[in-house]
Amino acid sequence: MGSVSAADVVIPACAVIGIAFALWQWFLVAKVKVSAYAPAGNGHGRAVFRAEGEDDDDAARIGGGGGDSDDEEDGGDGAAAVARCAEIQNAIAVGANSFLYTQYKYLAAFTAIFAVVIFLFLGSVHRFSTASQPCQYSKGKTCKPALANAAFTTVAFLLGAVTSVVSGYLGMRIATFANARTTLEARRGIGAAFSTAFRSGAVMGFLLSSLGLLVLYIAIKIFGLYYGDDWEGLYESITGYGLGGSSMALFGRVGGGIYTKAADVGADLVGKVERNIPEDDPRNPAVIADNVGDNVGDIAGMGSDLFGSYAESTCAALFVASISSFGADKDFAAVCYPLLISSAGLLVCLATTLFATDFFKVKTARGVAPALKLQLVISTGLMTVAALVVTFAALPAKFTLFDFGEEKQVKNWHLFFCVAIGLWAGLAIGFTTEYFTSNAYSPVRDVADSCRTGAATNVIFGLALGYKSVIVPVFAIAVSIYVSFTLASIYGIAIAALGMLSTVATGLAIDAYGPISDNAGGIAEMAGMSRRIRQRTDALDAAGNTTAAIGKGFAIGSAALVSLALFGAFVSRAGVTVINLLSPKVFAGLLVGAMLPYWFSAMTMKSVGSAALKMVEEVRRQFSTIPGLMEGRATPDYASCVRISTDASLREMMPPGALVLLAPLVAGTLFGVHTLAGLLAGALASGVQVAISASNSGGAWDNAKKYIEAGVSEHAKSLGPKGSEAHKAAVIGDTIGDPLKDTSGPSLNILIKLMAVESLVFAPFFAAHGGIIFK
Amino acid sequence: MGSVSAADVVIPACAVIGIAFALWQWFLVAKVKVSAYAPAGNGHGRAVFRAEGEDDDDAARIGGGGGDSDDEEDGGDGAAAVARCAEIQNAIAVGANSFLYTQYKYLAAFTAIFAVVIFLFLGSVHRFSTASQPCQYSKGKTCKPALANAAFTTVAFLLGAVTSVVSGYLGMRIATFANARTTLEARRGIGAAFSTAFRSGAVMGFLLSSLGLLVLYIAIKIFGLYYGDDWEGLYESITGYGLGGSSMALFGRVGGGIYTKAADVGADLVGKVERNIPEDDPRNPAVIADNVGDNVGDIAGMGSDLFGSYAESTCAALFVASISSFGADKDFAAVCYPLLISSAGLLVCLATTLFATDFFKVKTARGVAPALKLQLVISTGLMTVAALVVTFAALPAKFTLFDFGEEKQVKNWHLFFCVAIGLWAGLAIGFTTEYFTSNAYSPVRDVADSCRTGAATNVIFGLALGYKSVIVPVFAIAVSIYVSFTLASIYGIAIAALGMLSTVATGLAIDAYGPISDNAGGIAEMAGMSRRIRQRTDALDAAGNTTAAIGKGFAIGSAALVSLALFGAFVSRAGVTVINLLSPKVFAGLLVGAMLPYWFSAMTMKSVGSAALKMVEEVRRQFSTIPGLMEGRATPDYASCVRISTDASLREMMPPGALVLLAPLVAGTLFGVHTLAGLLAGALASGVQVAISASNSGGAWDNAKKYIEAGVSEHAKSLGPKGSEAHKAAVIGDTIGDPLKDTSGPSLNILIKLMAVESLVFAPFFAAHGGIIFK
Repeated sequence: MGSVSAADVVIPACAVIGIAFALWQWFLVAKVKVSAYAPAGNGHGRAVFRAEGEDDDDAARIGGGGGDSDDEEDGGDGAAAVARCAEIQNAIAVGANSFLYTQYKYLAAFTAIFAVVIFLFLGSVHRFSTASQPCQYSKGKTCKPALANAAFTTVAFLLGAVTSVVSGYLGMRIATFANARTTLEARRGIGAAFSTAFRSGAVMGFLLSSLGLLVLYIAIKIFGLYYGDDWEGLYESITGYGLGGSSMALFGRVGGGIYTKAADVGADLVGKVERNIPEDDPRNPAVIADNVGDNVGDIAGMGSDLFGSYAESTCAALFVASISSFGADKDFAAVCYPLLISSAGLLVCLATTLFATDFFKVKTARGVAPALKLQLVISTGLMTVAALVVTFAALPAKFTLFDFGEEKQVKNWHLFFCVAIGLWAGLAIGFTTEYFTSNAYSPVRDVADSCRTGAATNVIFGLALGYKSVIVPVFAIAVSIYVSFTLASIYGIAIAALGMLSTVATGLAIDAYGPISDNAGGIAEMAGMSRRIRQRTDALDAAGNTTAAIGKGFAIGSAALVSLALFGAFVSRAGVTVINLLSPKVFAGLLVGAMLPYWFSAMTMKSVGSAALKMVEEVRRQFSTIPGLMEGRATPDYASCVRISTDASLREMMPPGALVLLAPLVAGTLFGVHTLAGLLAGALASGVQVAISASNSGGAWDNAKKYIEAGVSEHAKSLGPKGSEAHKAAVIGDTIGDPLKDTSGPSLNILIKLMAVESLVFAPFFAAHGGIIFK
Repeated sequence: MGSVSAADVVIPACAVIGIAFALWQWFLVAKVKVSAYAPAGNGHGRAVFRAEGEDDDDAARIGGGGGDSDDEEDGGDGAAAVARCAEIQNAIAVGANSFLYTQYKYLAAFTAIFAVVIFLFLGSVHRFSTASQPCQYSKGKTCKPALANAAFTTVAFLLGAVTSVVSGYLGMRIATFANARTTLEARRGIGAAFSTAFRSGAVMGFLLSSLGLLVLYIAIKIFGLYYGDDWEGLYESITGYGLGGSSMALFGRVGGGIYTKAADVGADLVGKVERNIPEDDPRNPAVIADNVGDNVGDIAGMGSDLFGSYAESTCAALFVASISSFGADKDFAAVCYPLLISSAGLLVCLATTLFATDFFKVKTARGVAPALKLQLVISTGLMTVAALVVTFAALPAKFTLFDFGEEKQVKNWHLFFCVAIGLWAGLAIGFTTEYFTSNAYSPVRDVADSCRTGAATNVIFGLALGYKSVIVPVFAIAVSIYVSFTLASIYGIAIAALGMLSTVATGLAIDAYGPISDNAGGIAEMAGMSRRIRQRTDALDAAGNTTAAIGKGFAIGSAALVSLALFGAFVSRAGVTVINLLSPKVFAGLLVGAMLPYWFSAMTMKSVGSAALKMVEEVRRQFSTIPGLMEGRATPDYASCVRISTDASLREMMPPGALVLLAPLVAGTLFGVHTLAGLLAGALASGVQVAISASNSGGAWDNAKKYIEAGVSEHAKSLGPKGSEAHKAAVIGDTIGDPLKDTSGPSLNILIKLMAVESLVFAPFFAAHGGIIFK
């Protein structure tokens, strides 16, 4: 196990500092008092907006007037508004809580079953023998029995699953805790509101990355007590951690994605299109479900996704390191290089956060987007320096890495380049995404302009934009792959992925900021706060839209690298040295693999469509059967809409989940390692394109619509205002983009990663018993 | 060269029989007299619909009334109608002719330049030496100099290009010759009209496949006079034929696709959506351009595409055969096995055609679609038997095939299975496509149903349908690849592709039938013929929509196999035996290759969108500036719309064309054979999915719209009638689908094939001088 090294101090220390920082940020957010008398969880997911003590005039205004007219008076931003905010926040939190608890029940059942599958499959590799076995890579040595690996992999899987769920849950909690606080801080100015939203995002970012690091470190230490010098077995077992994290992320992303978009599309189709009431209008019965969706989809889902990437790339790197000279020399600091990079990343992100909240305060609406973009640049710059330090401190000057059965001589600065190229490729992807989805640039403006001739040209231009936006990110990923693969084989890819993810705390903070601001705006609208407040929250939200797109670009970019690293680790673990494209098995796998993202997207999009249709029917029913609803005199039945989204999401997440989990198992068991390798490569190559284009088409349509609505330029004004034919066409595009950008697109990250990590974990089984048909 | 064998009799005989049959069909079609006084080509692409001798009342009716009202009286189907049909036909023919001539001028320039590039690149392989060289595969023998190969490849390229252009042109001629004749035959009944349209399709199908076969056979014979025993060089040079055919197809498909959809989308957006006039209404200035587009895009483009597939798969098979034992043993009949299969296919298709036109005559509207589907089944069944006969007659019982540097023992019945699996996979793809795009089945009906909630859900459901429709075809292709690859290596793939294409004459007949019927309906509408006639042409057109989708499925399925065969031949010719996915070069290539279909689609879709916007402006301008146009008292300026489509298509086909042609050259020259192989595999795996899903989404939207319009069931009636909200949503979906199904989707076939055949032709250059950067 090696003596206590510097790594044993640095890693836990950084993790603890990260957690402490997150708690401090939480403390700062919590200082904003929402309400002295906020009801303590009414448990039915139903909000009664009419606070006690308000006069009738006030209550009637809540839903009245449509909120669009220029002559509308300022609402009251005083105690009554605070009380309303508190209630709405509570309704959202209760809805989100109740959905996640229900989802977790399903996930617990799934996890239990899958844990048994893992144990049985891996245990069967040597027929459940308890005898030690010759090591696969350390020739001449003896390693722990396959049965032990099966048991520890199962434990690691459970740990990963629990950590992922806790991360997602905490993210949701802080987001629902922060949304009304952001709204209220907007009374003090845009800077204060920005700080609150951004700090809340930081809580999530830091908690998640620190927790991931800490749990993984502790697991390695505890597993090490049993494994001793058998690092091969130790780090093989640890791969279960990545599988656990990623399989929870699958359901988080898919289930959350279906939830949020069923509600959003359903609310928009009736509210905006048929009834002509604004977004987030409290008269719309689906409005609470829509806001809940932001938290369970964009926050909890995104958190699980990036946690999964982080866990998987670390596991892939650790596994390859353990079978390289680091492992043979028992150099713990070198093996822990991936963890040290992540630790350094935490400190870098901590410093970066202070730039947004303390060093340069945002003062105007214009300053929001640059402040967020600056975060990316600063963290990337600082991390490049930090990586240099860590690389030279932790690694020997020269070492050999496992390279598909051969040994590759590598120098420490090679690995620095791997980190750096991942890091900068991430930035390039982020900025490309911004260019294609922000309405400050010509691509989105062209899409907006095409709305002149109707929805059809809008959709054609938006699809074309999404396709085009794939070019630069794919070249960035391809160059990263080429350079890191050439420099340090599969280990280099894993390190490049970790490089891209080393600033994940900042990335997540920026990303979570989006839905928090979106919710804050929704709460301001629902609580009937003044126009001034809503303008401020809208400004925060507009910047959040672009950062959400950047976050998605970042997630898919890192997923591609992670997936390739896992792919390499899988092939290594299965003992294969060549995957020949000129073999029928591999090519057939490649073709079918490239089809899987389409199959998967078909399922998820159809799910959103069907659930949205149900939502539409319910919302229409309420409008037609509840007297006085349109006039704002009655309260809609929010709970029934929440239920529709919940049921749809839980039911509909099963088939795509089954597809992702079964595809590698079936391919590996029936057709063997080579077909499975082809399948993974095909899914990766094709999934990246589908995911990026779907996210960016969706983002562009959303912002084209916002561009027309905001009417900030002559051009934009000529297309608007709200309700014009061009605007209606833009709304159709936005609605089409919803499932693309928030359900099927981001879920594909998980598809490509999860299939790869599952293959890695089951590799010994496939190598031993796989290929029943083609063998 | 071998003595005159049975193959030397059978192949030219079958080709001549095919040509004779085509001429006979043409003769039958020509018996329908359109007009005694049709003006002989007024050369300005402008139609004056008002025929001499008609009274004013008649002339006013041409554009009046909107053609939709039930109480409209029957138009005159007599001499005046015939004259009008003749004029409209003439206007379409002149427009199509003038477009193709202009396009051919560009193509001639391109072909000349590219011929020089081919000669220089290939000539440089041995530095333009005129000395003979040792053979690459026939060890110890001497082959002709690389310079000779360069020269003959260039000649073959020119031959392929000319044959492709002639095929496309003849197809267009017969189609524009037949459309008005179909309209007029509809006066005699649906059976007569069907026969005319189908026979015209058959003319194209048989001319194209016979011509392709004959030219290739003659080229082999003439090249053989120089090459003598050097079959390696001979069949290497012949690959230029495939490149020539395919590069013309690129521009035919892309240029034609942009032309037809710019006109179609532009015509619909103003005519149907803004002005509420029916499709093909003569008041719409873009209507002639729209009809011309059907002929230059769907007929000439499709013809070039399938001719390219046919030429390429034959070339790939011939090349692999020449370096196998067939070549070593100088067994001409065995080497010519691919040509013999195609010859047998001609006879089978001939017999099949008689089933549609002579044995079982179509008598009712209901009988049309089954008659067309029966053609597929009969031709597949007969061809399976024919393949069995040819296989045992032409091939030795055992032989060895080249298998990436090794020798593979193969039996003759293995090749029969390769033909059969290709053939039946084609049928499976055809029927799957029908299921997903015909409104007789639930998928399209679900899409139609989703129009209730507007255009957004329609698009979401349509996209999901397209994604889902990929599953079965990809499995069919993957199984074909696996079986044929395993049985007979890369030769097996080429033979499977040829199997799928062996019934191409029937496939093309069915496919060309669609646009001919579509045009016939348009002419009936424009000529103001009676409601009865239009109902008959509509029935023909509806069946044509589905067969067009089947044709596209067929084209992409065969393209996938052809492309893989070319890929294998390329790798063989470059002397590579393993393409290892676990190499950075290959994987980076794979990822970028998978991106190319997106880049390409972005270009073509944006082109259609932009051209359509211009068309919209022009049509709007004419409606607002030409007095009396809406009332049908004035003639629109059709020629200016034709010009917009022509200019747009010629200008916009350059960038996507350059992308396809340059990508392999750049990848091969700078990064070498391995990266290029990865690129091709990625483009193939990803392109197949994009192409199938795009075609089927588009087909489904089109037929969902038609389903609502036709209102044949209670369900359909509840969504309609024309002009209802659901119908408007369906029209938006249809318009979005236009560029997907007729421009970007089908063009991707060419992308994957052309990149592969180009790599094959340039393989010696890449092997000798490629990989400047990565070497």
